[in-house]
Amino acid sequence: MTRERLYLYDTTLRDGQQTQGVQFSTDEKRQIAETLDALGVDYIEGGWPGANPTDSAFFDTRPDTRATFTAFGMTKRAGMSAENDDVLAAVMNAGTRAVCLVGKSHDFHVKAALGITLAENTENIARSVAYMVVQGREALFDAEHFFDGYKANPDYALETVRAAYDAGARWIVLCDTNGGVMPPEVHKITRAVIAAGIPGDHVGIHTHNDTENAVANSLAAIDAGARQVQGTLNGLGERCGNANLTTLIPTLLLKEPYASGYETGVTLTALEGLTRASRKLDDILNRVPMRQAPYVGASAFAHKAGLHASAILKNPTTYEHIDPGLVGNTRIVPMSNQAGQSNLRSRLADAGIEVEKGNPALGRILDRVKAREAEGYSYDTAQASFELIARDELGQMPRYFEVKRYKVTVERRKNKRNRMVSLSEAVVVVKIGGAKTLSVSESMDETGQDRGPVNALSKALAKDLGPYQDYIDDLRLVDFKVRITQGGTEAVTRVIVDSEDGQGRRWSTVGVSPNIVDASFEALLDAINWKLMRDKAPVAT
Amino acid sequence: MTRERLYLYDTTLRDGQQTQGVQFSTDEKRQIAETLDALGVDYIEGGWPGANPTDSAFFDTRPDTRATFTAFGMTKRAGMSAENDDVLAAVMNAGTRAVCLVGKSHDFHVKAALGITLAENTENIARSVAYMVVQGREALFDAEHFFDGYKANPDYALETVRAAYDAGARWIVLCDTNGGVMPPEVHKITRAVIAAGIPGDHVGIHTHNDTENAVANSLAAIDAGARQVQGTLNGLGERCGNANLTTLIPTLLLKEPYASGYETGVTLTALEGLTRASRKLDDILNRVPMRQAPYVGASAFAHKAGLHASAILKNPTTYEHIDPGLVGNTRIVPMSNQAGQSNLRSRLADAGIEVEKGNPALGRILDRVKAREAEGYSYDTAQASFELIARDELGQMPRYFEVKRYKVTVERRKNKRNRMVSLSEAVVVVKIGGAKTLSVSESMDETGQDRGPVNALSKALAKDLGPYQDYIDDLRLVDFKVRITQGGTEAVTRVIVDSEDGQGRRWSTVGVSPNIVDASFEALLDAINWKLMRDKAPVAT
Repeated sequence: MTRERLYLYDTTLRDGQQTQGVQFSTDEKRQIAETLDALGVDYIEGGWPGANPTDSAFFDTRPDTRATFTAFGMTKRAGMSAENDDVLAAVMNAGTRAVCLVGKSHDFHVKAALGITLAENTENIARSVAYMVVQGREALFDAEHFFDGYKANPDYALETVRAAYDAGARWIVLCDTNGGVMPPEVHKITRAVIAAGIPGDHVGIHTHNDTENAVANSLAAIDAGARQVQGTLNGLGERCGNANLTTLIPTLLLKEPYASGYETGVTLTALEGLTRASRKLDDILNRVPMRQAPYVGASAFAHKAGLHASAILKNPTTYEHIDPGLVGNTRIVPMSNQAGQSNLRSRLADAGIEVEKGNPALGRILDRVKAREAEGYSYDTAQASFELIARDELGQMPRYFEVKRYKVTVERRKNKRNRMVSLSEAVVVVKIGGAKTLSVSESMDETGQDRGPVNALSKALAKDLGPYQDYIDDLRLVDFKVRITQGGTEAVTRVIVDSEDGQGRRWSTVGVSPNIVDASFEALLDAINWKLMRDKAPVAT
Repeated sequence: MTRERLYLYDTTLRDGQQTQGVQFSTDEKRQIAETLDALGVDYIEGGWPGANPTDSAFFDTRPDTRATFTAFGMTKRAGMSAENDDVLAAVMNAGTRAVCLVGKSHDFHVKAALGITLAENTENIARSVAYMVVQGREALFDAEHFFDGYKANPDYALETVRAAYDAGARWIVLCDTNGGVMPPEVHKITRAVIAAGIPGDHVGIHTHNDTENAVANSLAAIDAGARQVQGTLNGLGERCGNANLTTLIPTLLLKEPYASGYETGVTLTALEGLTRASRKLDDILNRVPMRQAPYVGASAFAHKAGLHASAILKNPTTYEHIDPGLVGNTRIVPMSNQAGQSNLRSRLADAGIEVEKGNPALGRILDRVKAREAEGYSYDTAQASFELIARDELGQMPRYFEVKRYKVTVERRKNKRNRMVSLSEAVVVVKIGGAKTLSVSESMDETGQDRGPVNALSKALAKDLGPYQDYIDDLRLVDFKVRITQGGTEAVTRVIVDSEDGQGRRWSTVGVSPNIVDASFEALLDAINWKLMRDKAPVAT
């Protein structure tokens, strides 16, 4: 069976930028375009040249991509020719191989938003598309509000897309602009468009996620015959976002009937870079990646239920819809109070600790983890702290050093300029081998601002660990999460610390105490001990 | 046209708890159950009695709900009777009106995970269901991996659900356990189940979001005739989560063909509490609410594109699929100062502050709130801190006292009995009228345990406020939430403090600083000032 070609159109840089709080710089747009190109999408919509200075600058310096670079704009306005519309001119002047213009196909919007006649609108569409074609560009027409328009006035909606197609548009893109249409409607209306004479391999689909159906609506349009699908990385976009290409791409490549029915520009090798591409976008946006994201989320292949975890150990297909490696993701079998010994053994194996079935240490580890969870600890994410407990019970955890005492002070008072400022100071006393070390640190960052007591403690602790100093010099605290939880009958504070080192390793540790400083200190100690253990530091005597 | 009854089954407390990092306390489960009950779901699945201590404790003390409380478990094991299976006994002993048991319907799992014959498995299902019925319970059968099982061996999959139905199960719930099935398959297979003799009003659907199709798959099953739909608030759940009831409920109530075809237990009035219910769950989880969440997200009705925003001002239906007020959400139109001011006035009126239209203080309040939000403050929940800002700009906020300085110490060292203990101590210097007061406090609770630096600060501050002392004697700190957030370019700590007084009033205040102690102190100060203002304390001179 020959597979039909399905085209992927990315609009992360245009519609994705409509996400609240997102504003890409020119350089960030370049990085994202290169990521998309490496993935293998067919079109990269770069923005709306002329609409804002960043978009214009980006088109001037855009990277050379294999994907067809596309500029976005709107159809010419009434009362002027396409040649004389300066908004359209700015779009055309970007000089891209393809141009996508949005226009109205819902009669209500023609009247309410544009205030022109239906015939004028149709003519604006036809002339704009014809102009693009004459200029030698691949022309795309985004039919705004197409599905709502079709439901209100099918004849007029079809008239607009037929006008664009007859004028030479390569693609007619049916848009669910408000995101409120249901999958069966998308399927039915897309079929109607094709039945009305626009071949499916000229029909595209552009959906929004306002009812959580953006992916399903895209698939429904493909099922009905559409052969171009638009979306964004990580589902960025106006309001609730656009169709998520990070989900659609693996579904189209790995799931039936798509896998054997269609061919895209994304190879199975490129697909293995999907998780990395998704995280890279979050890095650029400085957002915490969504753990629950399909395919690429950190939890997407995390098996918490005890029944699931034990079956996964026998055969991963029992509770996984795909092999996580196909999209560059990994399996996690976390610890929790629902876990049994099989869960535990597989979690230990992931940490490189092989324990034979029936080893009595397994029961001790489980008991200790359960007892600590009842005190408020949580080892779902703090796997490094879990590993320390396990190694301790297995007799594999050295005692590197002992903290004899510490003291932290937070002071707030007026400074010389009569402004209230705060300052934290920490003293830590550590015993290593036979020697006692006393370290002190303030909490100032480079700009002279107080970063608080935990920062001061962390710096004092890491300041002089004698023979271990070389091992922890590249350790950095990258995130810090606090939550008030129930330990026994009293509220306690749980602190999770994420650390990173020069080798790019990242690990999480946990501390619990009614005293937030003490809980943080405990998590910091675990972070250092894990690093020393992993780097096989010799124990000082 | 009479509308068919569609039943909503919530599993936030059971499958939702399979979310990585989520572990509800008994009290949190109670709060969530009450929220669900107020919303109007038909079934609340409370957990798996016997599987862990928290779940067992919760069933013992579960709230009285209008919704049918349901215990979850698994079908009896082979080689013993239903009466003698202790795992099943723990589930039945919870004494709930309904019981839902999961069992295998995929031949591969019967062999690979259970290692028993297909006939044995069918018998386990039938006998377990019959046992529930004899015990007078409403019986639900969760057919695990049903869709994958049907695709592999339709005859056997149907045999398992028929066995459950014939044994008296009220509901046969078809589960897409691994989350990999596509909507058209769900539709086709659900129809096949009904065609095989299980009436649609006895068929339920349970989906997972591993391909972002959980909502679409649920709707596809309803379209095919299923009349019970399972899901969780905010789409919590194992791996990528379960079908999101927060999305499904408004879709079923507001969108065609569901709105006029079906009736649920959720009223349009209760629907207006949906956004609040969603935020409440995030509060309990101490998670940042997802801005892009359909219907309830802060961005769900935010119109950033210039074209959209100007059309919205003419007519909101141009770019909104529903009226945000229907789900208790609000529209955000950036740059729309007018909309901002009318929003603000209604919010002030909520706090009992009437401000006439056009008062220049309105602009100043908006500017100050926006500037503080950019620094990391959040006034969504901290209504009391918002009120203090508004009253200050309106010239209605007295200066009761001034904190000149404070100092907190946290020390950890060995005590007389050679055990590590910690102790916090705070000194606060306050100026009231012309007089300066110096107060000091430790952080010990009644049992002699250190409650940390914020506790010590709070006690020192409240120890001697001179003429105000009577007003704050009944003030209690009841909750304390900490979140690391972005203020400008640096990570800062946001602390929300919930306070309560003898009149049963409860209010929330916020503080932000890179220093967690300082952020807490700011929130504590706001809490005291709000109390003095509300109780109309006369200003000391």
